[in-house]
Amino acid sequence: MAKPKKTPRPKAETPRGFRDYFGAEVTRRSEMLGRIAAVYHRYGFDALESAGVERVEALGKFLPDVDRPNEGVFAWQEDAEAEKPGDWLALRYDLTAPLARVYAQHRNDLPTPYRRYAMGPVWRNEKPGPGRYRQFYQCDADTVGSGSVAADAEICAMLADCLEEVGIARGDYVVRVNNRKVLNGVLEVAGLSGDDKETERGIVLRAIDKLDRLGAEGVRALLGAGRKDESGDFTDGAGLDDAQAEVVMGFMQAKRDSAAETCARLRELVGDSAVGGAGVDELEQIGALLGAGGYGPDRIEIDPSVVRGLGYYTGPVYEAELTFEITDDKGRKRNFGSVAGGGRYDDLVKRFTGQEVPATGVSIGVDRLLAALEAKGRLDDRAEGPVVVTVMDRDRMADYQAMVAELRAEGIRAEVYLGNPKNFGNQLKYADKRHSPVAIIEGGDEHAKGVVQIKDLVLGARIAQDATLEEWRDRPSQYEVARGDMVAKVREILELYR
Amino acid sequence: MAKPKKTPRPKAETPRGFRDYFGAEVTRRSEMLGRIAAVYHRYGFDALESAGVERVEALGKFLPDVDRPNEGVFAWQEDAEAEKPGDWLALRYDLTAPLARVYAQHRNDLPTPYRRYAMGPVWRNEKPGPGRYRQFYQCDADTVGSGSVAADAEICAMLADCLEEVGIARGDYVVRVNNRKVLNGVLEVAGLSGDDKETERGIVLRAIDKLDRLGAEGVRALLGAGRKDESGDFTDGAGLDDAQAEVVMGFMQAKRDSAAETCARLRELVGDSAVGGAGVDELEQIGALLGAGGYGPDRIEIDPSVVRGLGYYTGPVYEAELTFEITDDKGRKRNFGSVAGGGRYDDLVKRFTGQEVPATGVSIGVDRLLAALEAKGRLDDRAEGPVVVTVMDRDRMADYQAMVAELRAEGIRAEVYLGNPKNFGNQLKYADKRHSPVAIIEGGDEHAKGVVQIKDLVLGARIAQDATLEEWRDRPSQYEVARGDMVAKVREILELYR
Repeated sequence: MAKPKKTPRPKAETPRGFRDYFGAEVTRRSEMLGRIAAVYHRYGFDALESAGVERVEALGKFLPDVDRPNEGVFAWQEDAEAEKPGDWLALRYDLTAPLARVYAQHRNDLPTPYRRYAMGPVWRNEKPGPGRYRQFYQCDADTVGSGSVAADAEICAMLADCLEEVGIARGDYVVRVNNRKVLNGVLEVAGLSGDDKETERGIVLRAIDKLDRLGAEGVRALLGAGRKDESGDFTDGAGLDDAQAEVVMGFMQAKRDSAAETCARLRELVGDSAVGGAGVDELEQIGALLGAGGYGPDRIEIDPSVVRGLGYYTGPVYEAELTFEITDDKGRKRNFGSVAGGGRYDDLVKRFTGQEVPATGVSIGVDRLLAALEAKGRLDDRAEGPVVVTVMDRDRMADYQAMVAELRAEGIRAEVYLGNPKNFGNQLKYADKRHSPVAIIEGGDEHAKGVVQIKDLVLGARIAQDATLEEWRDRPSQYEVARGDMVAKVREILELYR
Repeated sequence: MAKPKKTPRPKAETPRGFRDYFGAEVTRRSEMLGRIAAVYHRYGFDALESAGVERVEALGKFLPDVDRPNEGVFAWQEDAEAEKPGDWLALRYDLTAPLARVYAQHRNDLPTPYRRYAMGPVWRNEKPGPGRYRQFYQCDADTVGSGSVAADAEICAMLADCLEEVGIARGDYVVRVNNRKVLNGVLEVAGLSGDDKETERGIVLRAIDKLDRLGAEGVRALLGAGRKDESGDFTDGAGLDDAQAEVVMGFMQAKRDSAAETCARLRELVGDSAVGGAGVDELEQIGALLGAGGYGPDRIEIDPSVVRGLGYYTGPVYEAELTFEITDDKGRKRNFGSVAGGGRYDDLVKRFTGQEVPATGVSIGVDRLLAALEAKGRLDDRAEGPVVVTVMDRDRMADYQAMVAELRAEGIRAEVYLGNPKNFGNQLKYADKRHSPVAIIEGGDEHAKGVVQIKDLVLGARIAQDATLEEWRDRPSQYEVARGDMVAKVREILELYR
């Protein structure tokens, strides 16, 4: 392969819509994933890790008569230049489509039901926006092959446990449960179950989903003649009469203080509808199972206003919401909102095998959860940087290495400065950039006396920030200790900032 | 988008060269990565996670005058069908090329030197083979921006610590260190440093690399006139005369009992070569630094026979080898061999900025390490399955859920059987497939008496395997205990198999 004569320098850039994660951004996320995995595992879920790459036809978002897959995924053709080009491959866009493929491929070797969890990156070929990236993490747990509502209840309980495990206190979240069948029953009672009513049903579903934003009055307008918004734009309504609209409004507002009362109210609303009645039965069972496991309405509640991607789901749906207020970018207070959701779906494996396999599962939005913990100030923000051993005498590098080895042996994160040691100020600037809590100095004089200087950099930074602070005035930020006491003194300082 | 009339069912298949990882395969790897990350972190290295997707030009394996990137990576063009197609994107093939891009892009915000670690999947568009996949894990640590050999020594020490941390005992591994500059000095002494000697140098390098396989005699032949192998094929030699060949042979066999003796021998061999002398100086410094940190030749040794991708490296190179024997697929005993390696390279960022930035780094082969631990029988193989609570009475599902909630609260992995409970035999088969250590049974009779049946499935399986075993004869494999003693009895059984 001949080298080209002159190559212009490449640009050092992430591709559009991708980003790099540094230091604590990475370790905090992996710690959170580890905690969630431990809960999933305790519930009997097994880890599954499939590749990032799948055959496009297995992902199943594409028409067979189109040469090139649609937008939405990153895809390419195997051996595109060859005489016989191969399969189209694509990066997975979620963890559910690969689960379907895995289950269909390995179903004879997998237990039934198959409880699995998966966590990892997924890719979307979409227009990136602020805070919206083309690669992000998903963290899912699904039970495949069980139609029992016990499977749904179990996932709701597990979701509550996961939230507490990662640091969301009880009372700061609620898992809300609803059932698609109840909604179908309500639509039946409202006279909207016919094949000719698809448009109306769509309008009703979207209206319910907007309850938070539009309030009861706005939704009521959309159920009837339609609604003009603040800008003057008009949205067509579903054209329900008052009696019909009342049933739907009643459904949305059916939540009562206990699961039993809510279910009783729903049973009134679905009247004679068979599917509606079955839905209420399921909600009652879920309530009873959760109650027996100790998951009361302070953690998990039946809430008929939960409507999430209902077109996809066939039974119970659930959503975890954080209930505390945060201040958003524009300084407004608002509820943090949803951080996880899921439900029951039945066509998972059918595409591959023709067989209908019931499944239910949840996806936790790890990045949103991290943002929530940060907003709450619950992320451990003590100095995470290493102790930096400075280099005063280049020829005694071995002594400095011995110091960090001692510190590390005691579990203390530590490093020797490896840049050019000539300018000592640069070494301290480096320690600052590393968010180091402590710097150690051992020049010729110290060496001769058998001591080291230990600088408390956290305190130093605070004094620099506000030199008048009473509380710091009498504390030194540098100590001279015997070389043999180095580790103990460093530990003492680190303890202060834990 | 119109739906096609009839879609043939897609095949449920991983793409060629990709695979799925299940259960313990996933958790063991992530546990290992977690342990290695903890060591890297303790050494002051910071996590970095870049996206799986990079701009092809940033990866830098491609000619600018070729439309489609070469083989070796998975690549595609952004908006290929659009009027103005965009950049070529590709999946990263290692973690070093993205490090170069990240460092060039963010260098003003990063500390100097920048110690970073990264772990994650990489992709190679190569012909898959047995045990060779097109997606696999890498686990790297690099120090960018320091030319000091203290950086190389530190990485060697860290590598030794990592191996011990994941379960390789001291004595079962050795980190071997060499220096490219010493080899250059030896080649200079042997009269092979001229621009016209490139072919000969190549033959010499490849010959040294084959010492393990061909033995000293085979290598000697390749340094001289050439060598005929068992099949009769002839490989050209470098055509060195006896004196020249002796220098190279002496280099390969220069290892002595201590670093100091080895360095003394190497200094003889490089004679007046300036680069050779500098290389020996560096090895001496590395030996001294490691000795000061407590890393003696039982863990890290200077070994001139280490030759790894020397074309790429510019200074110290290092390699970790497992020294115990394993039995391979064909029943032959052999050394397990290399599990990690790296070295110093200086052209990392130059492609982007024109500036030469020194760097040194290591890559640990996590999948090979896992295979090694498995071969050594060091992976924890006790039953990792969950306790299975069977369902004798479908209407008492809430009671069974309460049982697993109790077990989980005590940190015991547990689940309720969620398949069709009609056939009890199927429930035990399921428990078997899940590698469950314990099954719990509470039918109507037990419920009335306030007891549960607890089956020890590990013991049950052993008895089934060999019913005559004396030691099992008197042990029951099923116990009836009071409901209130359930958790304690389960814990007692689990303790037996830890």
